[in-house]
Amino acid sequence: MAIPLILDCDPGHDDALAIMLAAADPRLNLLAITTVAGNQTLEKTTLNARRVCTIAGITGVPIAAGYDRPLVGELTVGEYIHGASGLDGPTFGEPTVPVVEEHAVELMRRLLLEHPEPVTLVPLGPLTNIAVLLRDHPEVRSQIREIVLMGGSTERGNIAPYSEFNVAVDPEAADLVLRSGLPVTMCGLNVTHQALVTPEVVARLRAIGGDLADACVDLLTFFGSGYERVFGLADPPLHDPVAVARVIDPSLVECVRVPVAVELTGTHTRGATVVDLHGKTGAPPNALVAMRLDTPRFWDLMVEAVTKLSA
Amino acid sequence: MAIPLILDCDPGHDDALAIMLAAADPRLNLLAITTVAGNQTLEKTTLNARRVCTIAGITGVPIAAGYDRPLVGELTVGEYIHGASGLDGPTFGEPTVPVVEEHAVELMRRLLLEHPEPVTLVPLGPLTNIAVLLRDHPEVRSQIREIVLMGGSTERGNIAPYSEFNVAVDPEAADLVLRSGLPVTMCGLNVTHQALVTPEVVARLRAIGGDLADACVDLLTFFGSGYERVFGLADPPLHDPVAVARVIDPSLVECVRVPVAVELTGTHTRGATVVDLHGKTGAPPNALVAMRLDTPRFWDLMVEAVTKLSA
Amino acid sequence: MAIPLILDCDPGHDDALAIMLAAADPRLNLLAITTVAGNQTLEKTTLNARRVCTIAGITGVPIAAGYDRPLVGELTVGEYIHGASGLDGPTFGEPTVPVVEEHAVELMRRLLLEHPEPVTLVPLGPLTNIAVLLRDHPEVRSQIREIVLMGGSTERGNIAPYSEFNVAVDPEAADLVLRSGLPVTMCGLNVTHQALVTPEVVARLRAIGGDLADACVDLLTFFGSGYERVFGLADPPLHDPVAVARVIDPSLVECVRVPVAVELTGTHTRGATVVDLHGKTGAPPNALVAMRLDTPRFWDLMVEAVTKLSA
Amino acid sequence: MAIPLILDCDPGHDDALAIMLAAADPRLNLLAITTVAGNQTLEKTTLNARRVCTIAGITGVPIAAGYDRPLVGELTVGEYIHGASGLDGPTFGEPTVPVVEEHAVELMRRLLLEHPEPVTLVPLGPLTNIAVLLRDHPEVRSQIREIVLMGGSTERGNIAPYSEFNVAVDPEAADLVLRSGLPVTMCGLNVTHQALVTPEVVARLRAIGGDLADACVDLLTFFGSGYERVFGLADPPLHDPVAVARVIDPSLVECVRVPVAVELTGTHTRGATVVDLHGKTGAPPNALVAMRLDTPRFWDLMVEAVTKLSA
Repeated sequence: MAIPLILDCDPGHDDALAIMLAAADPRLNLLAITTVAGNQTLEKTTLNARRVCTIAGITGVPIAAGYDRPLVGELTVGEYIHGASGLDGPTFGEPTVPVVEEHAVELMRRLLLEHPEPVTLVPLGPLTNIAVLLRDHPEVRSQIREIVLMGGSTERGNIAPYSEFNVAVDPEAADLVLRSGLPVTMCGLNVTHQALVTPEVVARLRAIGGDLADACVDLLTFFGSGYERVFGLADPPLHDPVAVARVIDPSLVECVRVPVAVELTGTHTRGATVVDLHGKTGAPPNALVAMRLDTPRFWDLMVEAVTKLSA
Repeated sequence: MAIPLILDCDPGHDDALAIMLAAADPRLNLLAITTVAGNQTLEKTTLNARRVCTIAGITGVPIAAGYDRPLVGELTVGEYIHGASGLDGPTFGEPTVPVVEEHAVELMRRLLLEHPEPVTLVPLGPLTNIAVLLRDHPEVRSQIREIVLMGGSTERGNIAPYSEFNVAVDPEAADLVLRSGLPVTMCGLNVTHQALVTPEVVARLRAIGGDLADACVDLLTFFGSGYERVFGLADPPLHDPVAVARVIDPSLVECVRVPVAVELTGTHTRGATVVDLHGKTGAPPNALVAMRLDTPRFWDLMVEAVTKLSA
Repeated sequence: MAIPLILDCDPGHDDALAIMLAAADPRLNLLAITTVAGNQTLEKTTLNARRVCTIAGITGVPIAAGYDRPLVGELTVGEYIHGASGLDGPTFGEPTVPVVEEHAVELMRRLLLEHPEPVTLVPLGPLTNIAVLLRDHPEVRSQIREIVLMGGSTERGNIAPYSEFNVAVDPEAADLVLRSGLPVTMCGLNVTHQALVTPEVVARLRAIGGDLADACVDLLTFFGSGYERVFGLADPPLHDPVAVARVIDPSLVECVRVPVAVELTGTHTRGATVVDLHGKTGAPPNALVAMRLDTPRFWDLMVEAVTKLSA
Repeated sequence: MAIPLILDCDPGHDDALAIMLAAADPRLNLLAITTVAGNQTLEKTTLNARRVCTIAGITGVPIAAGYDRPLVGELTVGEYIHGASGLDGPTFGEPTVPVVEEHAVELMRRLLLEHPEPVTLVPLGPLTNIAVLLRDHPEVRSQIREIVLMGGSTERGNIAPYSEFNVAVDPEAADLVLRSGLPVTMCGLNVTHQALVTPEVVARLRAIGGDLADACVDLLTFFGSGYERVFGLADPPLHDPVAVARVIDPSLVECVRVPVAVELTGTHTRGATVVDLHGKTGAPPNALVAMRLDTPRFWDLMVEAVTKLSA
């Protein structure tokens, strides 16, 4: 039976492909897409979620908008990578997929309580929505099967030397989720940098043909130019689909169970995920941390998903 | 003409080999060895400096003891890697090399002012001595050619997830040195982990024969067992000689000029060196940071030095 | 015309008298009472709001429950002063005043948008509800006349040497309110300690006679015993009504316009309100800070209110 | 028998009168005056110590210069109160009293070890010298009778809302002294603001007559104009002599034994002394904190001292 999941995201180029993967793979049952401010403002990420569903022909999955800023402080957006629209590259027409009236947190709460079995949450942006859900609605806890998030890093960050964007935009929210006591899996930059979009990957997507595949190629081309400009990386890492892949088939993403703390007070390190791989801190483990991706099988999954949606 | 340098260290296994390299290489003129608390207490690191000079036949180089604790807070020692003596492994006789009366900082100050040309400082332990020298004796600044230190990391730390031992033991001292405005080169874990003591390296040292080479093998065997136990690393990284190698021949250690900040206030990240490789912070560059080691040539240097001292 | 206001509180002994003052004074139009966790858990503070309205005969004012914990971290309650019920002292029967279904933030939002003129918010507990209102519903900003809060201090704190309870329980919320750009008046411990419940004040209340006055005397007696035990203070300070008095008649509470920052990162000072009375920080002023209370007229107001409700 | 003491100071107007009090009172035996950077640069505070001794006829007391900046970070001077010279107001001739060659810390160490009985240290500036003495020379600990310092506050600060100048200039040094385990008495702003230089006090000093008394009047007039300008205070507080008075006669300054922590990490509160008067933190007491000054007897002492030196 398919695994029920809710995708909480801030599209974003890599979010776009994560939505496609989550909607297309037969092992998943995508209950809803919720949006949050992050890669761009809430208005833009919500519009982008609708655009992605429209071009990918994903209908019947409710889309709800959530928080437009972090729990504490001001919003930082990822325009330097994702462009002014948050999804620069392809040209999009008017989206035909609507957004529901319900707030993202309310939709998640309702779906969790209504669903006959526990549901997996897959946060791909700042953890604001998830943090408010857990903080204000403790009654949903037993209905959450696990939380598999893209964010953090065991190594270097991206928005700052030791801080990854999703966690650094709302460190208090990430802290709350990691200390929630629920089963949390963190797919950080250390593993998503094993999902580099090489020219060969782009060629496989292009070979699918059709509007959706072309849009994917355009998205990845723009995304890649940002990584090249900012980080000097020839091939950009496709972060968000890695978390979805972990839910589809845990054997794709090898994890270790270790202590993870979020740095909240550092002058230069606020938002760092401090992953204690060698038991130096004495803290108890509180998360599964992804360490290794089966890269070839990951790309097979991704190409398969776009192929299926293009059919 | 040989480059005049002062080695400030806390022996320590890798310090021991750094002393040998600095004393043996004809391109260097080792003016003094100063000691500081770090891998072990000051008493032990000073005794160990004398032991190393005794077994290596290094005479005529003054050894002076410096600070026995960091600028702020209590001393943490590296017993978990270096053992109870700080230099566990070989058996040492009574050292025949003396320690001078002068305080390490006073000796450095005097040598810097007396030497006809600027001198290179090579700190291989916590930066307490160097920080006090710079803070209290600004008149020596123009006599310092450069500071090439082992410490910090662009990636993960060792004593804590993002904190390297030498910097984490005395973060305020490291901060002062990095913000001194003097030319500073930081050889961190990211580059010293390119100097792994493989079985082949041990075999080359053993092949030299004699008491000194045997002692080196014993040192590296003990050192390696610590890294295996604590970090699960098969081959231990020989940190300190990398900084000496950089002074001997800069082409051995490739560097980039970037901003480096020391995290002083983080709850989980105190003592992290926050190296801004991609210009995300807007801070001006303040250090050369070592990125790549020419590993084969490095080991050639090291083997040559032990061979020369064994002759 | 009466000033429309919403009281956001966590009763609490001094909250109880603030509710009476706000309901009784003819210059005010109390639109709603909202509750938050603070002096006790949300369940208890909400029950206590209903108890106070029941014994004081305050009907027709909607009561709505809000957040049961701060934006970040765990709830600390003020049981050491307010007892196990949050309102220890008198005996209360079953409350006859109901609580509405709407969440406190939703009720505030609706009332603000519906009211023909801007409304004054008077927060007397942790600022969680107000922070979420401002953060998530920017459309209400123009409908807020001002925010007059009880919290913080220009001098010492109470829950910690420099931290006052309401701010320290949810520092991030207080920070958000103080940096909101709206007109904020802070009535801190420095001014509420000018409202000491002396034996003479108790005698005046007792002289009113009747169940309500007796309950007030019981409340203040219990409250006083807590202050005596914890702080060695003979007469307890009646914090919350001071903010209400400021709204009734600004001439009762003299204020200065200065910069106020909330300390979020201090190891020993988290939750301190750092009030720059002498322009040492260079920050622009962001709040009116209450400095002096007209104590005799304040007590006249308070006695008058209880008298009126007892009639 | 007279109490042996060493005055460590940064003159500074109030330091000047503290030196006079320490030199004149027959119950004290002033062994040395050491200087530190604080109210002005080290060069200026050292010159000022010599000026004060010269005009007051204090000879035979060695003066030694110590640290010219704090343990961590850059020096902030108190020019806004003490003027460009650090001792603005009177005109001084060339000082006739010399400064010794020894470093302040070395002189303190030697005197402590040589003196037949334990010695009282009275720090009146940033605690840099004292911190280095305690950190680097543990052998002197048993020779220190007690440390009676001017610094900190139980209430508001001066250089920042909650931070007093002497502690805020070198918070790490103050932290080290307060956590040293030695008997420490802290005379903070809360008690020194009970030593206000009223017009009556000035009149009593003027009535003494002579050059020294005139210079004192000039010093206090300049000092007072600074406090009026910066803090709006009509009468300036004469901080430093209060600590000396406590050594002369403990009954002049009433103290409580409580926990005191120095805030090192606060964004707005670095350098605050967090004094736990009501046992809210659970920390063990580590200092005597001065709470009340016997103001009339204090001024009698001060006037007597200037009178005696003027004879």
